[in-house]
Amino acid sequence: MVVNINEKFRKIDSLHSYKIIARMNAYYFKLVRMKREFIWHRHPDTDEVFMVIDGNLQIDLRDERLQIRKGEMVVIPRGVEHKPSCTQECRILLIEPADTVNTGDAGGELTDHALEWI
Amino acid sequence: MVVNINEKFRKIDSLHSYKIIARMNAYYFKLVRMKREFIWHRHPDTDEVFMVIDGNLQIDLRDERLQIRKGEMVVIPRGVEHKPSCTQECRILLIEPADTVNTGDAGGELTDHALEWI
Repeated sequence: MVVNINEKFRKIDSLHSYKIIARMNAYYFKLVRMKREFIWHRHPDTDEVFMVIDGNLQIDLRDERLQIRKGEMVVIPRGVEHKPSCTQECRILLIEPADTVNTGDAGGELTDHALEWI
Repeated sequence: MVVNINEKFRKIDSLHSYKIIARMNAYYFKLVRMKREFIWHRHPDTDEVFMVIDGNLQIDLRDERLQIRKGEMVVIPRGVEHKPSCTQECRILLIEPADTVNTGDAGGELTDHALEWI
């Protein structure tokens, strides 16, 4: 019932593979190890929370560049275009509705179809 | 827009005063510095997330005692009676619907009526 976030990360072997660690009502808590430049996209129907557990995450907005470090979080409001990226591995906790797709309205080859619990 | 959780805690002068640091859709992210034995209560309409940022939190359920340490989180399912407590100060991030009351269905003098943003 109690979830240790770093222990869960140790079970994730590969980058860019989203893993569910908890559910709160209709929301998932998901972990991802990231090291890439993602694509511009938006989630028309929901806000999205990024919490950085380790490393540094950059999120470009159309008019601003956000830097999110370990121990920091940000809410990307619904409908706002954003492009996450990191040049070194970054460990992220995402909080969003269970039906949220990682690529939002953009789709494409980076869309994750293999979401599973760990 | 980016929220540093420990910096927010440094702005909280007193124990047991719940402070909002972010909103995601209809949910608040709230911080509280806790050092007390709370009361038995439940939230009939929602799950509730406790994430421990520092210290150790104990949550008694009717049939189990949970220990949640720094870097750990737990989802208390809707309707489940629970009693949080800590003998040393514990720093907690709570995630729950904006209209959730800290004492749930129990009410009473520990109910927080002064929720504000920091």
